[in-house]
Amino acid sequence: MSFSEYFPVYNKLTADQQKLIDKHTFLFKQPKEKVIHNSGEDCLGLLVIRSGQLRVYIVSEDGREITLYRLFEHDICLLSASCVMNNIQFDIIIETEKDSEFWVIPPDIYKEVSQQSAALANYANDLMAGSFSEVMWLVEQIMWKSMDKRLAAFLLEESALEDSDILQMTHEKIANHMGTAREVITRMLRYFQGEEMVKLRRGTIELTNKKALGQLARS
Amino acid sequence: MSFSEYFPVYNKLTADQQKLIDKHTFLFKQPKEKVIHNSGEDCLGLLVIRSGQLRVYIVSEDGREITLYRLFEHDICLLSASCVMNNIQFDIIIETEKDSEFWVIPPDIYKEVSQQSAALANYANDLMAGSFSEVMWLVEQIMWKSMDKRLAAFLLEESALEDSDILQMTHEKIANHMGTAREVITRMLRYFQGEEMVKLRRGTIELTNKKALGQLARS
Repeated sequence: MSFSEYFPVYNKLTADQQKLIDKHTFLFKQPKEKVIHNSGEDCLGLLVIRSGQLRVYIVSEDGREITLYRLFEHDICLLSASCVMNNIQFDIIIETEKDSEFWVIPPDIYKEVSQQSAALANYANDLMAGSFSEVMWLVEQIMWKSMDKRLAAFLLEESALEDSDILQMTHEKIANHMGTAREVITRMLRYFQGEEMVKLRRGTIELTNKKALGQLARS
Repeated sequence: MSFSEYFPVYNKLTADQQKLIDKHTFLFKQPKEKVIHNSGEDCLGLLVIRSGQLRVYIVSEDGREITLYRLFEHDICLLSASCVMNNIQFDIIIETEKDSEFWVIPPDIYKEVSQQSAALANYANDLMAGSFSEVMWLVEQIMWKSMDKRLAAFLLEESALEDSDILQMTHEKIANHMGTAREVITRMLRYFQGEEMVKLRRGTIELTNKKALGQLARS
């Protein structure tokens, strides 16, 4: 599949605009577990994900993390070009969770074309609305769902992403996704184990009763 | 001051686009404490605030609230036109906190012009980025600031908005702003009173040591 199939608004641009994007856009490959963007320090550009899995997160002054959302094949990340957008007043970090391939449209090229093209500017609006909605979902989770329900939902999501009932993930890493402390996750996983919903072994968490986890997540 | 001074992108539109907006935009006056928009039920349009103060908030299934941000003179609210925006997947409610006047650009008019005009579409991007940043600030507050610091900051903000050290506000109302229970606010205000930072009377909260509150909020 070609770039334009991953970046559908491409077909609504003029020939000159397409040429400009073709000339400057490049494909990037990165192995898993690599920080590819930190908007406090750099400005990568618009990312068009061809394959893999990436995590977008924020970090507090004292190093605590929380995952905002993830990027998968066909997703497009606008916030990695935030240096050319007015009014974005927060920093995000993006890291690969799996080996990933993505196209990068440099920020100045994105800016130049979006200022000419209502189609691209409206498309960018849709992208930002999508990210905004993901963060609003997170706000609702944090405010109105207890940690046990959020953890049950997270384990099921991970299991679906990995297509496996056995997760190879440290308690520390889960805590970083969920914006809490490792101890909180360890305590809750032990409670889940007592309820026979999971089985804990060194370095792995096996989901032994996904139905019960699902009921907890939805309750 | 005229509408175009409150809606600066107006001067970047064509004469036809300006005419269309002029024809359909109307000025609305509402007294304080009135719900003017609920995106679960209606779709008011783009709001351009001429005067007053409004609160944008979300509400959980069981009726708990949290304030996302407020709108003041010269602010523009895009999310009240979310029905014509793709990918907005959350509902907000807007209520007046003071007597307010605002222009309303109907959603279909906003949509029609933004599809033609890169200037308006980019301006809408800036507006959405601003709201998104406000919500990200809230996420950071919720995740990484304890409730006592958030309450101290809220009391100081209210005092500045009302230009008074005596706030006429119920504990219930504060709890709705901050997304917590009334009991939590009452307990913390009593603690603040013990520290001689506030004085509680029936229906009012007097800030008696704003310096100490400020230190707490920033700590």
